[in-house]
Amino acid sequence: MTTIKGSNLTWYEHTITKADRANQKKQKPFLLWLTGLSGSGKSSIANALEFELFKGDYHSYILDGDNVRQHLNRDLGFSDEDRVENIRRIAEVSKLFVDAGMIVVTAFISPFAKERQLAKDLLEDGEFVEVFVKAPLDVCEQRDPKGLYKKARNGEIRNFTGIDSPYEEPKNPQLVLDNAANTVDENVSVIMSYLKQQKLIL
Amino acid sequence: MTTIKGSNLTWYEHTITKADRANQKKQKPFLLWLTGLSGSGKSSIANALEFELFKGDYHSYILDGDNVRQHLNRDLGFSDEDRVENIRRIAEVSKLFVDAGMIVVTAFISPFAKERQLAKDLLEDGEFVEVFVKAPLDVCEQRDPKGLYKKARNGEIRNFTGIDSPYEEPKNPQLVLDNAANTVDENVSVIMSYLKQQKLIL
Repeated sequence: MTTIKGSNLTWYEHTITKADRANQKKQKPFLLWLTGLSGSGKSSIANALEFELFKGDYHSYILDGDNVRQHLNRDLGFSDEDRVENIRRIAEVSKLFVDAGMIVVTAFISPFAKERQLAKDLLEDGEFVEVFVKAPLDVCEQRDPKGLYKKARNGEIRNFTGIDSPYEEPKNPQLVLDNAANTVDENVSVIMSYLKQQKLIL
Repeated sequence: MTTIKGSNLTWYEHTITKADRANQKKQKPFLLWLTGLSGSGKSSIANALEFELFKGDYHSYILDGDNVRQHLNRDLGFSDEDRVENIRRIAEVSKLFVDAGMIVVTAFISPFAKERQLAKDLLEDGEFVEVFVKAPLDVCEQRDPKGLYKKARNGEIRNFTGIDSPYEEPKNPQLVLDNAANTVDENVSVIMSYLKQQKLIL
């Protein structure tokens, strides 16, 4: 509590800081950003990764289509403009979670390099880990877990990434995971090793 | 990890749940929603409250004008429509934090009963605590910590709550705090007692 000179006001500053909240959780907060085609396996990796982090008593949270697209961003469609706004809001919410001391894992196609850069720019140095979940389009289309490729091919969905909307591959991601040749567990091990090597986790 | 019958897919479910994340933090997650006029003292109370919660090793986070209005909601103005969208997004983000097992404190004027109800409806029973931070308009206007009342009276700001935009007082808030007669510390004590009584904290 500090009293501002020459006023009758008593001001509480934000006494609890990001560092306090991170220390309380005994971790470094950061954002691990998974990008890749629909069906590439981002959500599977995110969930298996959160499970590993939880076992190590890390405090994490996943942002994905299930908890964001139908709620916070339910007013947005799939036009290029709306995709940009979708990613902007996800990046801003991720930043709030990192400020809260959390480890955030996002699992969105996030097809545009510019928006991924925007997310990175919102965070401090070393807090953004870009992970490209790579799988060939034909493999993703064969998996088609939500039947979306079929709908896109039939013209029922427009602006679908990989079909009639572009996916810009990351040029300098921290990690590239081959999620066609390797299993989800193998890829999660690669991520965990990288995080340890970078001292983001112990 | 479960394999879906009749498919080659291996699906990871969201193995870590809201309950897991809350148990890890040894707390019940909930949203404490402060509402009141500009200058009523919501942010001061939020900060002092977070300090008390932190001392008790609770994991909390504040959403307020500083970290939301200029970032996630920077595309929004102060028309009635934008105010509604502002509160809708804050409520959705709060819900994500509660899902992450956190205690969330929001400090926004949130003048419309309907939007506060929307926030409440997003959460589960017992997870929403509405707190009316009450201070007479003339006291708030005299405090005018950001010089906004002066600008509103001069016509430099339009749609300012209490001046040319209505504030709908909560009809059944869990708590009403007199933040003109009582100090911030006294009001934080009232909140802490209430949270203990409701078994939201120990």
